[in-house]
Amino acid sequence: MKKTTTPLEVRYQETDQMGVVYHANYLVWFEIGRTKFIESLGFRYADMEKEGVVSPVTNANISFKKPIRYGEKASIETWLDHYDGLRTIYGYHILNEQNEVAVCGKTEHVIVKKANFRPLSVRKAFPDWHEAYMNALSKVGNV
Amino acid sequence: MKKTTTPLEVRYQETDQMGVVYHANYLVWFEIGRTKFIESLGFRYADMEKEGVVSPVTNANISFKKPIRYGEKASIETWLDHYDGLRTIYGYHILNEQNEVAVCGKTEHVIVKKANFRPLSVRKAFPDWHEAYMNALSKVGNV
Amino acid sequence: MKKTTTPLEVRYQETDQMGVVYHANYLVWFEIGRTKFIESLGFRYADMEKEGVVSPVTNANISFKKPIRYGEKASIETWLDHYDGLRTIYGYHILNEQNEVAVCGKTEHVIVKKANFRPLSVRKAFPDWHEAYMNALSKVGNV
Amino acid sequence: MKKTTTPLEVRYQETDQMGVVYHANYLVWFEIGRTKFIESLGFRYADMEKEGVVSPVTNANISFKKPIRYGEKASIETWLDHYDGLRTIYGYHILNEQNEVAVCGKTEHVIVKKANFRPLSVRKAFPDWHEAYMNALSKVGNV
Repeated sequence: MKKTTTPLEVRYQETDQMGVVYHANYLVWFEIGRTKFIESLGFRYADMEKEGVVSPVTNANISFKKPIRYGEKASIETWLDHYDGLRTIYGYHILNEQNEVAVCGKTEHVIVKKANFRPLSVRKAFPDWHEAYMNALSKVGNV
Repeated sequence: MKKTTTPLEVRYQETDQMGVVYHANYLVWFEIGRTKFIESLGFRYADMEKEGVVSPVTNANISFKKPIRYGEKASIETWLDHYDGLRTIYGYHILNEQNEVAVCGKTEHVIVKKANFRPLSVRKAFPDWHEAYMNALSKVGNV
Repeated sequence: MKKTTTPLEVRYQETDQMGVVYHANYLVWFEIGRTKFIESLGFRYADMEKEGVVSPVTNANISFKKPIRYGEKASIETWLDHYDGLRTIYGYHILNEQNEVAVCGKTEHVIVKKANFRPLSVRKAFPDWHEAYMNALSKVGNV
Repeated sequence: MKKTTTPLEVRYQETDQMGVVYHANYLVWFEIGRTKFIESLGFRYADMEKEGVVSPVTNANISFKKPIRYGEKASIETWLDHYDGLRTIYGYHILNEQNEVAVCGKTEHVIVKKANFRPLSVRKAFPDWHEAYMNALSKVGNV
């Protein structure tokens, strides 16, 4: 399975007075993992936006298992969980310094025209992305 | 069912270059809704923390249905979805200016000692909160 | 002197592990004060953007005198410090629950075309804003 | 002059609907530069906090010269501008992808007891930091 691992350093700004990373920031870390995963397929999300297309999140779920603290080295593993030409679901594991899964989650995305938020098909609008995603998916599973 | 409705004004800082509220910020709005719901029960989360107890999020899920834009008046409805003396689940609807559900979601919480993140029972540690939550819950559903 | 006062409630997300509001967030609070000041003159910044014009910050300075904590009621006073048809400088006082000045600062703004960030004159591009700002300024101190 | 240069990648979350990095985020980038500068002297800010001491910002000023956009590679140069055993002032240049100074600024810091925000002397409380900072300072200027 294609999976990228991206190192993360906790920013002081990301902590809250509980003394740990504020929970919403893990969605930002998911975004960093996703960006790097897309780059590993040979694309840049910034280029999609240059075409007037954006890719909003339609669903997210997150499980918070262990707190992560300032000064800790963390990392995020990102992979393609589902892709059908329209919807893309990424999976994420955030690992703490002991390499334990501290946070896990998924985010679902579609693509839409920036001008009016009308949905588009990835398959039709970005055939080269489509092919790369189908390939990344076929490597999931195994035998 | 006990439900609080809290008005929200989009901060410019909350937007991203897609021209809409950045998705992770809705978790912050959930927090605002939750704070107001707790106040409606007669408590303040800040007081819980003064006892050395914090209430981290253990699970969150969010559905993003419609974008919300800067300049729009929004609001958040918050209610108690589940409470069993240990775990508390809040439900949320974020309404846009047309009063449509733009975002919905749930967050699950436990309470832990701030010093070591060891779990505590709400029922035992905060019996008055427990009672208020049980009451809020019994008003859910009906008969 | 025309001056608006806007109440603020500290968001948990705005704290850091120092147990106080993270310093960069005061710039967001300045933005809230500024938005309300502009509304008090009868305008909405969102409307300016609908014309394809944005108003970036060109300079900011901030003095942090006292920490503000979660649970505290704060407020922000905003006024027009300088306006010359091109540059606008707003002044801010953030007051803590004891009504002491906890943070003070200024931000300087110009207006530019969103498409290319080319500077525009407020006086020429938005004559009605210009007039209102000149009036707000003439009410500052003096005679 | 001792100066550290730290690469920065714009996070989508850091943009706003103006299509550029939201201005308050540059203070977060200053924090990243400062953290790396301190590490270059052989210290970690997280270790100072383990002693019950925190280092709040007392003053900040920032000039925003050019917008930075998502997808751009940026970097931050950080140096010691002033140090007298009590107050520390760091200087910063944020460079855009063309290596132009896009943002510059300074932040002033003191150290205080986390428990009561009473000021401490760096010289007395952290003599090894003091020595390293005096050395870093003496390398400023020259001859």
